[in-house]
Amino acid sequence: MKKYNFNAGPSMLPREVIENTAKQLLDFNGSGLSLMEISHRAKDFQPVVDECVALFKELLDIPAGYSVIFLGGGASLQFMQIPANFLVKKAAYVNSGVWAKKAMKEAKLFGEVVEVASSADGGYTSYPKGFEANVPADADYLHVCTNNTIYGTECRKDFDVKVPLVADMSSDIMSRPVDVAKYNAIYAGAQKNLAMAGVTVIIVKDDALGKAPRELPTMLDYRTHVEKGSMFNTPPVVPIYSMLENLRWLKKNGGVEAADKRAHERAAALYAEIDRNKLFKGTVEEASRSVMNLCFVMNEDYAELEKPFLDFATERGIVGIKGHRSVGGFRASCYNAQTMEGVKALIQAMKDFEAKH
Amino acid sequence: MKKYNFNAGPSMLPREVIENTAKQLLDFNGSGLSLMEISHRAKDFQPVVDECVALFKELLDIPAGYSVIFLGGGASLQFMQIPANFLVKKAAYVNSGVWAKKAMKEAKLFGEVVEVASSADGGYTSYPKGFEANVPADADYLHVCTNNTIYGTECRKDFDVKVPLVADMSSDIMSRPVDVAKYNAIYAGAQKNLAMAGVTVIIVKDDALGKAPRELPTMLDYRTHVEKGSMFNTPPVVPIYSMLENLRWLKKNGGVEAADKRAHERAAALYAEIDRNKLFKGTVEEASRSVMNLCFVMNEDYAELEKPFLDFATERGIVGIKGHRSVGGFRASCYNAQTMEGVKALIQAMKDFEAKH
Repeated sequence: MKKYNFNAGPSMLPREVIENTAKQLLDFNGSGLSLMEISHRAKDFQPVVDECVALFKELLDIPAGYSVIFLGGGASLQFMQIPANFLVKKAAYVNSGVWAKKAMKEAKLFGEVVEVASSADGGYTSYPKGFEANVPADADYLHVCTNNTIYGTECRKDFDVKVPLVADMSSDIMSRPVDVAKYNAIYAGAQKNLAMAGVTVIIVKDDALGKAPRELPTMLDYRTHVEKGSMFNTPPVVPIYSMLENLRWLKKNGGVEAADKRAHERAAALYAEIDRNKLFKGTVEEASRSVMNLCFVMNEDYAELEKPFLDFATERGIVGIKGHRSVGGFRASCYNAQTMEGVKALIQAMKDFEAKH
Repeated sequence: MKKYNFNAGPSMLPREVIENTAKQLLDFNGSGLSLMEISHRAKDFQPVVDECVALFKELLDIPAGYSVIFLGGGASLQFMQIPANFLVKKAAYVNSGVWAKKAMKEAKLFGEVVEVASSADGGYTSYPKGFEANVPADADYLHVCTNNTIYGTECRKDFDVKVPLVADMSSDIMSRPVDVAKYNAIYAGAQKNLAMAGVTVIIVKDDALGKAPRELPTMLDYRTHVEKGSMFNTPPVVPIYSMLENLRWLKKNGGVEAADKRAHERAAALYAEIDRNKLFKGTVEEASRSVMNLCFVMNEDYAELEKPFLDFATERGIVGIKGHRSVGGFRASCYNAQTMEGVKALIQAMKDFEAKH
């Protein structure tokens, strides 16, 4: 049976990305060796890293003066690495969800942290708004998590503030054009919009580095990896390769503008059904609705149908729509690789299930 | 043409490990989803992590009171994470090569570092000896790098000292039995003896954790990962899976005792040829010779034949024998997956090349 993958991360990847990566595992570029057993110093691998960097710069229209590096450890490691590298005295944070809060917690080890906005009181069911004027002019940066995977909220814009931005874009990177010039750093775990799990991308503004007043361990200093082109130590070779295949796919399919358009089309269709169907309702205020993670629950009158709907959808090959335990209900993750076919299958399941009740 | 892979890392893996991993990339356990796009919280992935931990404990005969965790970032990140977690006041380090020295450099950020032995003066062509009595009794640990990939030196034993050991075993883990009870921590990047690049294994003694007098960022505290069973954040799913396949292979092939025996047989054969052949000579004193990385150069009289031999070997499908730039000559890496067939192919090439000159 065909499967429709709505996993929140690691998540769906285009079939050609999967097949091309599997093929290279068996024989990398006709070398007779597997991609799993080639040296990262091999002449055939440097072009993989170079092309990834070039595609990042091209697809996100990254201005001169920025570097793109690929590290292990996940975005969670960046929660401390960002302040370690950029926090001189004070940083501003937007508390838009659990992951944003985790980032804030780590920053406190390195200096003063000002929470300029929070939607915690509302259970994170909206993205904080109207806080731009509250950002202290002497903050080293404003940190935002642009999409909150758990709650399905998203800002989907680059805020106008008087200080540089730093963003965790783990769950919406490469899904829309970004004004990179506003940022000192953008970071993203790869396992949602970019690649298999195991690599984290960081876009850093070169001249913003080296200003923090602390001696950093070599591996935590972004300059180490900028200077060595992500090759200071052995990089995660296969995850990086899968990212290359995915970036090629994205370029072939119209880049971030087209990805943005497709994301909005998928989200419009699914939110329309969530709003129309008597069984379901959305969990997020309309202006904050994410086009990456679409969260919904059963309407009160049909609460007992949650498990039956999950089973009904599973029987149709719909995978990964169980909501995060802190929100409950359902979450349909629609990252770049998601298809309208998948969304339509979910909508049809919702309609057919409604007709039965 | 069949290739014989002597890469120093990432390096050769058993063909069945490669093929089984590639297969799961196309369809993970018959789920209809790729291993690249399943959630790390999926019920099918937890058993992968559990089996990896169980096989580590079984194969290395790890006593109770130890945890095995899988992180990203590489062994280089451990150079700082080890002292961050274990260095209370003073640590002893053996300077057996460039990587050991790098580990020592990071430790200095966290406390006093005593270099108890060094083979730097001899260009690291031997493994430091007879230093056990010099280890300060009040050191928090003695750090050793058990195998020095660049130089081809190896201690291949667990030192008897009065303080706990900490070891970087990146390039010889799982190649011999280890008395784990002597160690507070053993760490290893996976890309030599364990798996594709992208995961680092750390074996930690549970009751040695939490004693360092500093507040650690969450991701750098081993306790975070011990408590969450390596699932605090998204782990490198595919690299971990490839490790599982490799550990299964190792178990099926007799475990670490058999791996040790095979390593010694391969090394004995190749060193015998290095010593016999008039064109070549070893670079390491005999007592320190590594059975993982076998380094050799042209004899002085035949120095001009270095490049011709490299080309000659390449024509026979022998890959990755170019020595590290700091040593020159040749390095044949013979990790667990290396075969006697590969070693014999290299020996035959050396013999045939000698016959021509």
